[in-house]
Amino acid sequence: MTLDQFFPFWKELTPAQQETLTRFVTRRSVKKGTILHNGSEDCVGLFIVEEGQLRAYIVSEEGKEISLYRLLPWDMCLFSASCMMNSIQFDVTVIAEQDSEILHIPTAVYQGMMKESASVANFTNEIMASRFSDVMWLMDQILYKRMDSRLAALLLEESQLSQTSQLKLTHEAAARYLGSAREVITRMLKYFQTEGIVSLSRGGIAITDSEKLAALAKDSIR
Amino acid sequence: MTLDQFFPFWKELTPAQQETLTRFVTRRSVKKGTILHNGSEDCVGLFIVEEGQLRAYIVSEEGKEISLYRLLPWDMCLFSASCMMNSIQFDVTVIAEQDSEILHIPTAVYQGMMKESASVANFTNEIMASRFSDVMWLMDQILYKRMDSRLAALLLEESQLSQTSQLKLTHEAAARYLGSAREVITRMLKYFQTEGIVSLSRGGIAITDSEKLAALAKDSIR
Repeated sequence: MTLDQFFPFWKELTPAQQETLTRFVTRRSVKKGTILHNGSEDCVGLFIVEEGQLRAYIVSEEGKEISLYRLLPWDMCLFSASCMMNSIQFDVTVIAEQDSEILHIPTAVYQGMMKESASVANFTNEIMASRFSDVMWLMDQILYKRMDSRLAALLLEESQLSQTSQLKLTHEAAARYLGSAREVITRMLKYFQTEGIVSLSRGGIAITDSEKLAALAKDSIR
Repeated sequence: MTLDQFFPFWKELTPAQQETLTRFVTRRSVKKGTILHNGSEDCVGLFIVEEGQLRAYIVSEEGKEISLYRLLPWDMCLFSASCMMNSIQFDVTVIAEQDSEILHIPTAVYQGMMKESASVANFTNEIMASRFSDVMWLMDQILYKRMDSRLAALLLEESQLSQTSQLKLTHEAAARYLGSAREVITRMLKYFQTEGIVSLSRGGIAITDSEKLAALAKDSIR
């Protein structure tokens, strides 16, 4: 991946800005499990995922994690440079979920370009809006509709009834049962998949971590 | 309030941009209870609060509301112009919580300036980051720590023990009891106050809506 491929604003940068960015960007290989950014403790810079997968999450005082979103190839991680903006007052942790290849941009370099170029600032705006949308979706589904627990309870019930962890349940049927929409169920199942709880295939849903599923389902009776 | 007072980037605009903005901004008086923006249905433009108070919230399918944040004088409402950014994929409702005086900026005018000026784009970035932080705080406290329910249960218990709605409980004591920090309790109490559940004074905490408080507290046993 080259910078002019990644950044939609590349052509709008001045030659001097292009040169600065090129000079300060470094490539890093990180092992699965590496914590790239740890809450407010650091402001390590921006990451662009070339290969692999990063996960952003928050941690409660008791050590419980909630995944906020995943960063896949061609995604950029903004909050590892949260000191860039005064108004970011929350802390996420970013971990490599697979062995990953990433590009690193120092905070000051990116921040300088954002101040100079409306294109860079607007690009940053769109990335933040996109993460904001991810978090709002999660909040809506988890906090409000308890869709995570309710879906988990449904999967568990299906599995117990049919005495198998290979469920034939369709997304449509689950949606009908829970009074939701197919798209919502599909998105939540994908979230479960990235959490390692189920594995999705054309034929159906396989439960891969029944303990996690049971823990989620238990909440649905609260 | 004049535009040059409100916008920190005013001096960095060209005379033509200043004139455009001035020409298209209109003043509106809105009555308490007016819905200014209703989810994805509209993209009415940006609002600056001159006087009064707006509230942004999300609504569940069952009609339950969660307040995300308040907009007070000198605050700007961005999400009533959410069509401005492609990546904003969630819907908030904005209502006037008091009779309010607001300045209205058409979406296209602001969007045009954001594209041209890095200062406008970065200002917008900071506002979004600030709202994002509000929502993350809420999610952390409500979803994770159930601090809303736990604090409500504590207030209710205190009130029943002392047979009064005028509690002498200090924020420090509540924090100690709930294993939290004083700042967290103070912020949550202020949130309760804007929700009309309590009224705060130097002397203590007065319960003003015991039904809402009881409903919140009930959740703490889930």
